[in-house]
Amino acid sequence: MVDKKVRRALEKVVGRQNVLTEPADLLLYSYDASTAVGRPEAVVLPGSTEEVARVVKACAERGIPFVARGAGTNLSGGSAPTRGGVVIALTRMNRVLEIDEKNQRAVVQPGVVNLDLQKMLAGRGLQFCPDPASQKVSTIGGNVAENAGGPHCLKYGVTINHVLGMRVVLPSGEVREFGGKVLEHPGYDLVGLMVGSEGTLGIVTEMVLRLRPLPEDSQIVLGIFETLEAAGEAASRIIAEGMMPAALEIMDRQTIAAVEASFPSGLPLDVEAVLLIELDGLKESLDRQAERCAEICRELKAREVAVGRTPEEREKLWSARRSAFGATARLSPAMLVNDATVPRTKIPEALRKIQEIERRHGLRIAKIFHAGDGNLHSNILFERGNEEDFKRAEAATAEIFRACAELGGTITGEHGVGTEKVKFMSLLYSPADIEAQWKVKSAFDPQGLANPGKVLPERAPRGAEA
Amino acid sequence: MVDKKVRRALEKVVGRQNVLTEPADLLLYSYDASTAVGRPEAVVLPGSTEEVARVVKACAERGIPFVARGAGTNLSGGSAPTRGGVVIALTRMNRVLEIDEKNQRAVVQPGVVNLDLQKMLAGRGLQFCPDPASQKVSTIGGNVAENAGGPHCLKYGVTINHVLGMRVVLPSGEVREFGGKVLEHPGYDLVGLMVGSEGTLGIVTEMVLRLRPLPEDSQIVLGIFETLEAAGEAASRIIAEGMMPAALEIMDRQTIAAVEASFPSGLPLDVEAVLLIELDGLKESLDRQAERCAEICRELKAREVAVGRTPEEREKLWSARRSAFGATARLSPAMLVNDATVPRTKIPEALRKIQEIERRHGLRIAKIFHAGDGNLHSNILFERGNEEDFKRAEAATAEIFRACAELGGTITGEHGVGTEKVKFMSLLYSPADIEAQWKVKSAFDPQGLANPGKVLPERAPRGAEA
Repeated sequence: MVDKKVRRALEKVVGRQNVLTEPADLLLYSYDASTAVGRPEAVVLPGSTEEVARVVKACAERGIPFVARGAGTNLSGGSAPTRGGVVIALTRMNRVLEIDEKNQRAVVQPGVVNLDLQKMLAGRGLQFCPDPASQKVSTIGGNVAENAGGPHCLKYGVTINHVLGMRVVLPSGEVREFGGKVLEHPGYDLVGLMVGSEGTLGIVTEMVLRLRPLPEDSQIVLGIFETLEAAGEAASRIIAEGMMPAALEIMDRQTIAAVEASFPSGLPLDVEAVLLIELDGLKESLDRQAERCAEICRELKAREVAVGRTPEEREKLWSARRSAFGATARLSPAMLVNDATVPRTKIPEALRKIQEIERRHGLRIAKIFHAGDGNLHSNILFERGNEEDFKRAEAATAEIFRACAELGGTITGEHGVGTEKVKFMSLLYSPADIEAQWKVKSAFDPQGLANPGKVLPERAPRGAEA
Repeated sequence: MVDKKVRRALEKVVGRQNVLTEPADLLLYSYDASTAVGRPEAVVLPGSTEEVARVVKACAERGIPFVARGAGTNLSGGSAPTRGGVVIALTRMNRVLEIDEKNQRAVVQPGVVNLDLQKMLAGRGLQFCPDPASQKVSTIGGNVAENAGGPHCLKYGVTINHVLGMRVVLPSGEVREFGGKVLEHPGYDLVGLMVGSEGTLGIVTEMVLRLRPLPEDSQIVLGIFETLEAAGEAASRIIAEGMMPAALEIMDRQTIAAVEASFPSGLPLDVEAVLLIELDGLKESLDRQAERCAEICRELKAREVAVGRTPEEREKLWSARRSAFGATARLSPAMLVNDATVPRTKIPEALRKIQEIERRHGLRIAKIFHAGDGNLHSNILFERGNEEDFKRAEAATAEIFRACAELGGTITGEHGVGTEKVKFMSLLYSPADIEAQWKVKSAFDPQGLANPGKVLPERAPRGAEA
């Protein structure tokens, strides 16, 4: 429990102004962008690795759970303090410590906002590839904790592919260095282990990021389809032919309607799907690819195909997609977001199943897909305060996960497990397989204080392991 | 100890013909391609995951160490049974279980030879990107255990980027599934943890590999330089300009001499370096890049620059590089191979230091570099049986590692740690950082029977962790 004595100990570490215990303050840190909620006993805002270490040590000595937090845009409950304790907010640790242009590396603190970093890099012709939809507010620390994705991760890989080293405060309060600036490191891949571990193995307080040059040029192809399946088939065919677009996104009718209601961009309202294909690379490599993508769309009976070559044309075609999530949220602020994933060729089948689930429950599901890697975002709209509606949305979520798992897929492509998907881990892993993950958790966090209740379902009773 | 009783137990699992205990047989399995040696007590050749599990369980119950082994091409001692026990040779488990062309996945057993897989895939327009120099003989299981690289890993990433799922026999003999066929999996990245763990956390008996389409076309640019530094600078400048060649390789004078002695390809013997640049991708993307690479070579005063566009021209330019390792080994069968790595911009400085070390010790060091990712192979030639010569070679190795570590680099880019580099881990990690790796080892292998003595230096005495 965070009593006066603990509070004074925390204040001694970070200064009085950086320990919050007023109810109004605690409320602000009691949720994230998922439906998970939990009231912390205190919020601490450290300013350095050393301060984080001392705060964690104070918690460890007293058996108090702690949750690291960035901007709180987490979609799966990962940053909500569902078991109380101390929230360690890393927003003050927001410095870019180094940009090494020639070696294409950056060293950053966890509180750096993704888009702020991108802006600093763009002037130097570089980028940090992960570009989650939340990038205007979400932090690099959160991106790393969740192994975040984004539209351009199709070609360039999700966050795990772009983090090379880190400084970590272990749940004991000890500070460790994993990895470094070069690509590969001897020994076990502890950097890979930390990325996506949602703060359950420790708190990352500094990261070495791999940067890439911005592409020289890009083109956008937009296809408008009468059926979702045709759009999915087009996406699948593009990849099967050996092309690797930077992004390959599908929006369904519900999402188009939401976009046109809030940010009209002239998309027709009577179609089922829009497929957006972004190709990037050297100037001369784009024309033939764009032409072939357009051809594939036409072969699959696209009603309309547009190609954007100039920055203005491209921006116009991208804008609908970019505003899709916000527009959908505007349509219904109560929304269950999920990011089930299936093998690429199973997309049409998954879409049929999701539509069937939608109809059967009488729900509206706005679908935005990273189709290239089979990452299907089903945003299930429901009426806030309507318990029955919420239950239907939850039932549909479970059915979508089950259907995708049965198709050889998984329950998250980029949003993490948090609290919201813990119960679905058993769709993918046997109790024994989950026990193997617990081995890692217990090795790093024997007390179980680092973001408890997240990622792994409660430990199987003894004997289940055999 | 493997006595008659144990032997019978093993025979019961895999059949009599698959348990070897004759001295002549044991000798064959007592070394790998490094200088490490150790006599096993028995060699077992299981034919299935279940058999591997039963063999491991038999060892675990009796406290007998075990070492998994593929083709034994390991360059760091990883597959040598330096602490005796049982060698589990996976060569019989050499089936390609599935090739899913559309989803670009393959499921293979560990004993599949890398090049055999490549040949099966090439007919389908696909490839498994990791292409270690040993690919004609080395197995996918070994590639995974060592997180192997290869020339084309510059653009496409080393093995860890191409393995999505696996079946693993834990050191307890239990069978677990990690990951799967889609790109990302919820929970901790145990697949990433296993890749490169050199059999110290368990034995991988089945792997889901990520495949990629073969590039449509490629071109080779070859630059001949008067100094190694100029070649290194050219490599660095190519990347800094935002190009991403498929391969970027440097050979030094010693290597050129070795190649020309064994497989003459017309390279001049009076130059210090050859830089080989391979560009791949869509046909129309190559000309301008090749031209620019040639220009950079000329700017850095290359004596000669050649561009290969047809398959014949390309083969001619690549052939020298391809035969380099074998040719060097022919020059001096006693050779210490190391693969220290530095940040790309530090290549010229690292080269100066390596040349200085070479001179000071009066050694011949044949250098073959994956220059694009700063991976510097210094093949130190010495006279077999000449103890003093060997000691000098060892001293030079240590100095090269130290120099590269000081430049922000590391002690291995792709060959693993094994036994040969265990003592150099302390150049990179503090005892406390190594202790964090031991946490993982102990969680999976509390008895310490899985390939003991590899990867991690002996555990620090208690108290060192704090």
